[in-house]
Amino acid sequence: MAFKVGLLGLGTVGTGTVEILRDPAQRHPLLQELVIHKVGVRSLDKARSLNLSADLLTTDLDAIVTDPEIDIVVEVMGGLEPARSLILKALAHKKHVVTANKAAIARFGDEIFTAASEAGVYVLLEAAVGGGIPVIEPLKQSLCANRINTVIGIVNGTTNYILTRMQTEGGDFGEILADAQQLGYAEADPTADVDGLDAADKIAILASLAFSGRIKLSEVYCEGIRQIGAADIAYAEKLGFVIKLLAIAKRESDQQLQVRVHPTLVPKTHPLASVNDVYNAILIEGDPIGQVMFFGRGAGAGPTASAVVSDILNIAAILKVGRGQVTQADGTPLLDPLLACSHQHYCTIAPMSELVTRFYARFLTQDYPGVIGKLGTCFGDHQVSLESVVQAGIRDGLAEIVVVTHDVREGNFRKALDEIQRMTTVANIASVLRVL
Amino acid sequence: MAFKVGLLGLGTVGTGTVEILRDPAQRHPLLQELVIHKVGVRSLDKARSLNLSADLLTTDLDAIVTDPEIDIVVEVMGGLEPARSLILKALAHKKHVVTANKAAIARFGDEIFTAASEAGVYVLLEAAVGGGIPVIEPLKQSLCANRINTVIGIVNGTTNYILTRMQTEGGDFGEILADAQQLGYAEADPTADVDGLDAADKIAILASLAFSGRIKLSEVYCEGIRQIGAADIAYAEKLGFVIKLLAIAKRESDQQLQVRVHPTLVPKTHPLASVNDVYNAILIEGDPIGQVMFFGRGAGAGPTASAVVSDILNIAAILKVGRGQVTQADGTPLLDPLLACSHQHYCTIAPMSELVTRFYARFLTQDYPGVIGKLGTCFGDHQVSLESVVQAGIRDGLAEIVVVTHDVREGNFRKALDEIQRMTTVANIASVLRVL
Repeated sequence: MAFKVGLLGLGTVGTGTVEILRDPAQRHPLLQELVIHKVGVRSLDKARSLNLSADLLTTDLDAIVTDPEIDIVVEVMGGLEPARSLILKALAHKKHVVTANKAAIARFGDEIFTAASEAGVYVLLEAAVGGGIPVIEPLKQSLCANRINTVIGIVNGTTNYILTRMQTEGGDFGEILADAQQLGYAEADPTADVDGLDAADKIAILASLAFSGRIKLSEVYCEGIRQIGAADIAYAEKLGFVIKLLAIAKRESDQQLQVRVHPTLVPKTHPLASVNDVYNAILIEGDPIGQVMFFGRGAGAGPTASAVVSDILNIAAILKVGRGQVTQADGTPLLDPLLACSHQHYCTIAPMSELVTRFYARFLTQDYPGVIGKLGTCFGDHQVSLESVVQAGIRDGLAEIVVVTHDVREGNFRKALDEIQRMTTVANIASVLRVL
Repeated sequence: MAFKVGLLGLGTVGTGTVEILRDPAQRHPLLQELVIHKVGVRSLDKARSLNLSADLLTTDLDAIVTDPEIDIVVEVMGGLEPARSLILKALAHKKHVVTANKAAIARFGDEIFTAASEAGVYVLLEAAVGGGIPVIEPLKQSLCANRINTVIGIVNGTTNYILTRMQTEGGDFGEILADAQQLGYAEADPTADVDGLDAADKIAILASLAFSGRIKLSEVYCEGIRQIGAADIAYAEKLGFVIKLLAIAKRESDQQLQVRVHPTLVPKTHPLASVNDVYNAILIEGDPIGQVMFFGRGAGAGPTASAVVSDILNIAAILKVGRGQVTQADGTPLLDPLLACSHQHYCTIAPMSELVTRFYARFLTQDYPGVIGKLGTCFGDHQVSLESVVQAGIRDGLAEIVVVTHDVREGNFRKALDEIQRMTTVANIASVLRVL
């Protein structure tokens, strides 16, 4: 039997995918039943490392997603359009879809999964989060008996690389970003990574799976790492923490979730604290499993293609045994309830002002007695209980004061900050970070 | 639709399984379609924490595995017999089987999977390795595009707990084992854990999945942690290592595997080095994914039941959509080639004498000049290249000498040790450990 694959895109991930498909030795024997039928590219003239026969390549992507011979469409072109339209058209033509496109899934997941369900086909997306690290499929299958309470991930390799280097070298954000761009670890336009947008896409997808509901991306709180200074890394270190960009989804109550991305002080003993460089890790806490963590390289051609091809094989395995005999009212085959997306409601996400968390803040103030007292009184007035207030040193003639709170309501903390901002003795609120 | 489950055993894992099945809120909705039809127990009179209606319980286990109403048999009784016979009988009656029984699968996997294939049913066993940590299903599905090269696991919680305490407290094996037994972290008869037998069962199962072949358990090299002294932990620490009981399966060549369990010096910077207490972790290295690691609690009612119930749900999902339309020659449905076991050949396992690895060894010798020279010459005569030889101290009037080798052939190293053993100046070879 042969299963025909149509590939949309032949960039890094597409090339990695073709490389696995053409080298099945010592991999799963089912790979030998996959055939690359067409590969859609932007230009036929581009020089490529792969030696693909010319009749495989086409610039007519529409023809791929409507080709009656193709069983599985693999979208590895990235971006929002035409990726979204092509995926929807492929589904309308009853093709299974494998995608690595976190941005499209996070934004258009509702229409994509509704279309897939109507067509009776699968959309698999293991590669969209954590590169090759298995986390989508475990959430759907291996952990499906659990009530998931928390998902916390380091899901962006670029920011983790920058933060790791800031920590080991003591450098500032700007210089290390520039170096990372030179080395190819950060893109020329680093916004999606360093401002947390990529991580927000990914946690929206994970939250949707973990809590069986749709997530409005616009409701995901998102804060990047630009504000972090070498001083913060150093003070965090002294206090027993490292700073990581965490993507967090948490069941707050039966009705509400928290879904947020922000730099966070992580205790050095925490399993995520030692996840360094471009590595990603996702920690899931469920009942009754407790904590499980998945760790690996979160990006790159090889890891991402590993996930793409595994998804292709998962669909081929389903096709191989023949679709199930049970059909929906209109005759389309019923989808496996673990593999398909069955939820349609939107989750309610709690506003950040209601978040209860610990905070770290660094202030630059006039250097005279009583300033710490004024800060402490102000926090106290807003029910913000402090764990420590330390005058850490003098910077540019100003006193540098580092505050760590107990668990407090974010709304209260922000009100105190507003008031502090207006104090004439306070020159600058240099940084505010949450503590895990 | 309702899927009927017959449970064999109502110990810790069985009880945990029933608890999840009876509490579906905020778990996968498919749970609500599962019905506990019968629970097989040894005695009806035993006091139980669960309030199960009397007509569910039976001591007639045979009646469960042959009951025409039951779809899925869940074997959580443990032990070799009658577990093996009951599993085989359930398969002969075309029931899907979920088991947590690593010992039975490691020994009788060949006949169990052959029987399952003939009957056209699935045997799922996520709970057999690493408790609830997803590792079996990822190896079968999420990583199936990879050529797996190495699987290294900390897969026994008891020994990891003992080694972690030896490291943090500096105590000796015997006293900490006794304390672990008091606290319930080690069994009254600790043999299966501390001698590495449990880990050997698990790595045999993982190797079989990773390398798509059957593994003869008798060919798995197995060495426990009884020989490890506080001195070894302390010297390892000084050299930059921690000692862990590792279960290792490695592709040595196209023809041969290494499959082995032994205490190992692990560099402190290695991802497995910080896996402490009762936690388990499995590190998998594949092409093109690189390294991925799975981490969590490897035992206990909750984590293990999480894996058992997830497997039940995976089978229920397959039943829900209807078995595939493609059948084998005799009419039994074709099994999903990723979920079922398709291999039948046995892997060839290389003898330990051919292993190439680094060694750590500790010798007690007469305390006079020239001893280090004699050791060094003997190793050199056997092509054993040394990285360091250090007289670490004096113990009971004898010189304590710690040797670390470069990568050497184990057979050569053993020959050198034989010769050293016979030297009159050498009182004792106190310990020999491999280095990762």
